[in-house]
Amino acid sequence: MPSTALSFSSRDEHRAWLATQSALPLGFRVGTARFDFMPKEAPKPAKMTLTLIALDKPTPDFAAMFTKNAFPGAPVIVGRQRLDEPLLGAIIVNNKISNVCAPGGVETSERVCVETAKLLGLPATAVLPSSTGVIGWGLPADDIVANLPKAAAALAAGSIMPAAEGIVTTDLYPKVRSAAVGAGRIVGIAKGAGMIEPNMATMLVYILTDLAVPRDTLRALLTKTVNASFNRISIDSDTSTSDTVALVSSSLVPCDDLAAFENALALVCRDLAEDVVRNGEGVRHVIRVEVKNAATASLACALGKAIVNAPLFKCAVAGNDPNVGRLVQAIGKHVGAHAPETDLSKLRASIGGIEIFAKGAFRLNPEKETALVAHLKNAELYTSKPSADGVFAATVDYPPHERCVEIEVDLGSGHAAATIFGGDLTHEYVSENADYRS
Amino acid sequence: MPSTALSFSSRDEHRAWLATQSALPLGFRVGTARFDFMPKEAPKPAKMTLTLIALDKPTPDFAAMFTKNAFPGAPVIVGRQRLDEPLLGAIIVNNKISNVCAPGGVETSERVCVETAKLLGLPATAVLPSSTGVIGWGLPADDIVANLPKAAAALAAGSIMPAAEGIVTTDLYPKVRSAAVGAGRIVGIAKGAGMIEPNMATMLVYILTDLAVPRDTLRALLTKTVNASFNRISIDSDTSTSDTVALVSSSLVPCDDLAAFENALALVCRDLAEDVVRNGEGVRHVIRVEVKNAATASLACALGKAIVNAPLFKCAVAGNDPNVGRLVQAIGKHVGAHAPETDLSKLRASIGGIEIFAKGAFRLNPEKETALVAHLKNAELYTSKPSADGVFAATVDYPPHERCVEIEVDLGSGHAAATIFGGDLTHEYVSENADYRS
Repeated sequence: MPSTALSFSSRDEHRAWLATQSALPLGFRVGTARFDFMPKEAPKPAKMTLTLIALDKPTPDFAAMFTKNAFPGAPVIVGRQRLDEPLLGAIIVNNKISNVCAPGGVETSERVCVETAKLLGLPATAVLPSSTGVIGWGLPADDIVANLPKAAAALAAGSIMPAAEGIVTTDLYPKVRSAAVGAGRIVGIAKGAGMIEPNMATMLVYILTDLAVPRDTLRALLTKTVNASFNRISIDSDTSTSDTVALVSSSLVPCDDLAAFENALALVCRDLAEDVVRNGEGVRHVIRVEVKNAATASLACALGKAIVNAPLFKCAVAGNDPNVGRLVQAIGKHVGAHAPETDLSKLRASIGGIEIFAKGAFRLNPEKETALVAHLKNAELYTSKPSADGVFAATVDYPPHERCVEIEVDLGSGHAAATIFGGDLTHEYVSENADYRS
Repeated sequence: MPSTALSFSSRDEHRAWLATQSALPLGFRVGTARFDFMPKEAPKPAKMTLTLIALDKPTPDFAAMFTKNAFPGAPVIVGRQRLDEPLLGAIIVNNKISNVCAPGGVETSERVCVETAKLLGLPATAVLPSSTGVIGWGLPADDIVANLPKAAAALAAGSIMPAAEGIVTTDLYPKVRSAAVGAGRIVGIAKGAGMIEPNMATMLVYILTDLAVPRDTLRALLTKTVNASFNRISIDSDTSTSDTVALVSSSLVPCDDLAAFENALALVCRDLAEDVVRNGEGVRHVIRVEVKNAATASLACALGKAIVNAPLFKCAVAGNDPNVGRLVQAIGKHVGAHAPETDLSKLRASIGGIEIFAKGAFRLNPEKETALVAHLKNAELYTSKPSADGVFAATVDYPPHERCVEIEVDLGSGHAAATIFGGDLTHEYVSENADYRS
């Protein structure tokens, strides 16, 4: 079942469905603590949420992938070291500040792990840290340490929802996906919502399972799965310095069918990745690009990314303007710069099932134009409403999954394919990001 | 003298200065014709301007460079063939429709050349065609042919200004730069203003000179000069399908000093390139990035482009928000994805002369934050003003050259450097491009 087959018409309906996805696998508890603090770098107070994910018993079975950004955050530097540790017992996440290249950032991140470990009776090396938020500021270590006991006291089995809500920044709603495999479960949560073009990893994603899958198998499966999910989306072509995907098993339920586990993991990742796009900063149109019959998978993937990252095409979609010229420009830009040997003579392109390009030329007429406008309008997640002060904000707090701009690009010159998800470029994105910190 | 040393405080002041730059070199005339027409692909009438640049006598001394987009416009396809012709006698430009991948586009472009040639007593192969505007629509050939005699009748020596004004689309003002070399002149005009990340060529630029420089030398100089000017700018990372730079000499004035000619040509190109950025769609801040002490010039250039093309950093600049984290993210994104062997440990970065990053960490405090905000505010070309209907439009019709966000990135690991110009990402850009055609 494609993720877009879901349909919600209100926040309550969406929340009710999320509740059906949120049961924690056996062996995990989550707890959060929210507090005010004063950043050293800014003149006014800010709010931070700590999210603690704890295993009842430390596990050797965990995997994680991190950003390829050459300035990784301190938690990413620490997290990479954790991959060599024998056991993982907890994950501690803070939002608001990402702890990237802050003086003493690694020491602060280690200190948070030490204090978390003390509360849970773990070695510090069994705690994986994560931070997301403003880049450049330092973590308020004393405030975090003072509030850790509150997060530990809140630890509870049952629902992952407190964690899904705790890790967000500019997200409009929590993102939870789950799948059952035999007697066990996989449950994943994700935090978006800007600086999203993952590169071998993604934003903050935590996937928990009670199915017993050994460490090496988990790691191999995660690499494969991330490549086909979180590496196939882009909100704005920017790559966060904090991207993290962690997959942790409590290994309390025997896994009798590894293929079924892999399929379920792939679905959870694909659906979470799409959720991140759907809730991307300012996204009013989700754009799904299917590139077919390409010479290689990497070309298919790169062409799809070139389309969803082309600013002028993104703006046209935002305005329900079927400016097909900008779509073809984006394809030609990528091929001209990076794959000039590609034969484009057989390229066919359609939007919403309507053919707009074939045999080297556009195939347009006023009737198609009208139908294309209707497709774009039907795909709009919400209607843009300017306010008196010129600041635009999203007017939806649930995701209408079934609304999607469908683009098909058939290169007619091979057998590889890729599906890429992205969003439009809107006033809401500019408003969100031209004054993000104030 | 750097281009930013100019200073204008009103449209009239800017226009008066443009007039001082606009004297046509000997041997050239320009004429325009403006008319209404009904596009086949759209339900309402549109306006088009034809711009004719004619030589008094056809010349063998001409050069041209074109877009690397893999879907070049029909005039680019024709223009590449013209490079093999013995003589050039005229350039015919239309705005509004770019004639890219339109059915029969090459035939239409050739027909426009044939009709232009008839009026001027030239062979059709001595006419270089250019088109800019909407991609995907077909040229209104009959309307163009009917209006060509009007453009030919308007041909006049003296000023290039009619051509500078005729070739524009969404530009806010014409762009003219000139230089004297001995008894001769170089005069260039440019049309922006969106879809600007040239790749071995650029938007529409026509550079005319009366200085006698042979064809082969002209072509070598143009390649070298474009690489250091038009290939060092980006408005939105999109690469037009119509990019063209033509350099034409009437060869009426002996050129006694080729080095002086080369220097003058480089200045005209650099200044026109900066003008294109300054008048980029929606640009409220020009961003100048100097990358120094890089291992290679290509790394320096690519890093500068990565910074001016990072959507989140561009939004922060638009909001006068010194979000230095997004700047460092952009550097790390590029290095992580494309140059992972780069040593970033000696990287120093400053904005407006204020150091913000050194030795692997941010160097921030509230005083610096205040100074950074002041630098960004001082660099604003104009103040954004929302209207009641939420549509944002530029409120300036002249370029304050001296206003510029200055970013310096010192890699401390080599001797190569590059200066890259770009702009911010604003509501004005989204308004311009979310409803460009209506």
